[in-house]
Amino acid sequence: MIFAKVVGSVVATQKDENLYGMKLLLCKEVDHHGRPLDTYHVAVDAVQAGEGDFVLLSYGSSARMTEMTRNAPIDAVVMAIIDDVQIVE
Amino acid sequence: MIFAKVVGSVVATQKDENLYGMKLLLCKEVDHHGRPLDTYHVAVDAVQAGEGDFVLLSYGSSARMTEMTRNAPIDAVVMAIIDDVQIVE
Amino acid sequence: MIFAKVVGSVVATQKDENLYGMKLLLCKEVDHHGRPLDTYHVAVDAVQAGEGDFVLLSYGSSARMTEMTRNAPIDAVVMAIIDDVQIVE
Amino acid sequence: MIFAKVVGSVVATQKDENLYGMKLLLCKEVDHHGRPLDTYHVAVDAVQAGEGDFVLLSYGSSARMTEMTRNAPIDAVVMAIIDDVQIVE
Amino acid sequence: MIFAKVVGSVVATQKDENLYGMKLLLCKEVDHHGRPLDTYHVAVDAVQAGEGDFVLLSYGSSARMTEMTRNAPIDAVVMAIIDDVQIVE
Repeated sequence: MIFAKVVGSVVATQKDENLYGMKLLLCKEVDHHGRPLDTYHVAVDAVQAGEGDFVLLSYGSSARMTEMTRNAPIDAVVMAIIDDVQIVE
Repeated sequence: MIFAKVVGSVVATQKDENLYGMKLLLCKEVDHHGRPLDTYHVAVDAVQAGEGDFVLLSYGSSARMTEMTRNAPIDAVVMAIIDDVQIVE
Repeated sequence: MIFAKVVGSVVATQKDENLYGMKLLLCKEVDHHGRPLDTYHVAVDAVQAGEGDFVLLSYGSSARMTEMTRNAPIDAVVMAIIDDVQIVE
Repeated sequence: MIFAKVVGSVVATQKDENLYGMKLLLCKEVDHHGRPLDTYHVAVDAVQAGEGDFVLLSYGSSARMTEMTRNAPIDAVVMAIIDDVQIVE
Repeated sequence: MIFAKVVGSVVATQKDENLYGMKLLLCKEVDHHGRPLDTYHVAVDAVQAGEGDFVLLSYGSSARMTEMTRNAPIDAVVMAIIDDVQIVE
């Protein structure tokens, strides 16, 4: 899974019907300390994440494993909002 | 999902029969502002996208999750035409 | 999907039984103009491609979606021979 | 599969219901000698791994193939704790 | 698929039960001439490969498509031992 911060959203009217009702979030990848990296991702929201939230993204067929996203032609989902990362290193 | 702009198409007569009737689009990757990057992608069109359209691509098994692409041996689909990207960053 | 040119083949006698009868092609990645890049791919032939052909490769679970490759432990297939790439850019 | 060392955990209260009861581990990628690399991964624990353990990660749909992770929207799992890597090179 | 040479093995006692009986091979990626590259892979052996063998690896869900690996939480399999690579370039 990938650490990211929600920084916006994507509006699309003309889209595959299996996407109706889903919110497309623009997410900026961050490291495990929450520090911004250079990569952006578009992912469907499965946990009512809001802008600024520190979240986890899951890629691939796993993105279709939430109630919200089943059978949708999407390859990334926001599936958790992070409270804390505990590091023992 | 990946941001891209449709810049052409690919013509193939000799192909797997599960590809019949599908349009193969040549897409140039862009960033979330629509600015061109260096990477090109070939993806099947599921939303009647036209040249110049700002679109979203989905990769992997998800590419087979549209009515158009079910069971086809393809790994990328254009599944939405983007109206707007809203950034709050 | 990835643009490539067929440049050879791979011979393997000792292999998983789900691979019997399949031809393993050595493919050199090319750009959308057909110009050679540095990466090589091994993919199963689903369209009777020959050496020198300009082809499309599909990766991942989609590689198993042709009649030829169903249920085989392969992650790449040649699923179309390209006649032309039309660019409007 | 990827070699990694468990270095922490991720706490998330608001998450997809298919994630309930799973432990999200923060893992630092290492090479086959166990030497640390720069990449971090978040993966679900399927083998009761503890901090400091030298483990194997599996990515993609395979991450859902343990009893613990079936049907969960996750793309990485810790599926083995490594005792030894034997190199003959 | 990826060219590799078997250079060792990975021993793991504590692992997911769907891995029992499988041999985890340490493989060093090579090019199509068999020349060593810098990347290492861990893959399950489906063809009784031995150390020093020049082999093909398949990644992703395809890794579960051999009799040996069905339903296992693994993302890479050695599915062929290479006799020869014929290049016409």
